[in-house]
Amino acid sequence: MAPHTIQYCNQCGNKVVRKIPPGETLVRAVCVSCRTVHYQNPKVVAGCIPEWNDQILLCRRAIEPRKGLWTFPAGFMEMGESVEEAAARETLEEAQANVHIHSLYGMYSLRHVSQVYVVFRGTLHQPEFSPGEESLEVQLMTIQQIPWESLAFPIIREALTHYVEDRQRGIFEVHVGTVSPIKNVL
Amino acid sequence: MAPHTIQYCNQCGNKVVRKIPPGETLVRAVCVSCRTVHYQNPKVVAGCIPEWNDQILLCRRAIEPRKGLWTFPAGFMEMGESVEEAAARETLEEAQANVHIHSLYGMYSLRHVSQVYVVFRGTLHQPEFSPGEESLEVQLMTIQQIPWESLAFPIIREALTHYVEDRQRGIFEVHVGTVSPIKNVL
Repeated sequence: MAPHTIQYCNQCGNKVVRKIPPGETLVRAVCVSCRTVHYQNPKVVAGCIPEWNDQILLCRRAIEPRKGLWTFPAGFMEMGESVEEAAARETLEEAQANVHIHSLYGMYSLRHVSQVYVVFRGTLHQPEFSPGEESLEVQLMTIQQIPWESLAFPIIREALTHYVEDRQRGIFEVHVGTVSPIKNVL
Repeated sequence: MAPHTIQYCNQCGNKVVRKIPPGETLVRAVCVSCRTVHYQNPKVVAGCIPEWNDQILLCRRAIEPRKGLWTFPAGFMEMGESVEEAAARETLEEAQANVHIHSLYGMYSLRHVSQVYVVFRGTLHQPEFSPGEESLEVQLMTIQQIPWESLAFPIIREALTHYVEDRQRGIFEVHVGTVSPIKNVL
């Protein structure tokens, strides 16, 4: 979701104007009253591909956007977390599953929405899981069972495509790249 | 730098209160008037270790914090960029150097300041560089010349320590970890 355009200063409540602050090169929202410069920056989405033997755990989304479609657990990183902690927390929230994050799998920039997806591989502590509030359904599946036609976002397809390729040749790499929108889907 | 505490709604200018929005688990700043929920999330700092043969390019900071101390080029990712683009831009801004970003080197979470450092290795197009506005001095140096006692931040020390170890054994890995503050230094 694109961030709202800043209209008012969150420090003093007065109007902001758009200008390039001294010593900078980009236009920012600057308060006309207290002169606070308001920066907007990309957000990190931390995700996990939870593994159990030869299966992975996917969730069917209970919320918009892309309600009813499949994803691995992922969500916005919160203040004070490490990226690994955020990925484990999202797995717990969305799939009620405890996971040991064991390796970085991919970092994908989504320039069109100013997000950076950081995806880890993790091992389930036990094959125990159930839908969290944001999931309709959670399921362990082999890579042959991945619902390619019902994945929620291009980034999910991209990461799972890499994952399947790596699994098939038995070598996991860290993938870095940019994912673009397809047909107005994030 | 820690973000300011949100006092006013940046959409309508009215006061915010702290509360847990429906369906969420964390306290957020919520507008008393238009009900906008204001999220604060960690920021990505994109950095590059620019390489030229057996040397790397370091910059001496011209600005606070840690003015006068050494770092590799790094700075906050901007909206609409990929992480690699941000790292190359920071190298251009701080060291006036053009770099080809060729591999992810490390991802370090700084929980105490809610930042994620993403560090790449890059190759200089030519051995041409000069101090940008935020640098006092820019210098190519061998790993033996790294000024360990004058590095700006623990994250810089951590990444360069990994880098020197990897260079010495001839194998570069992707490093993932958490860096904690030392003696009130970020």
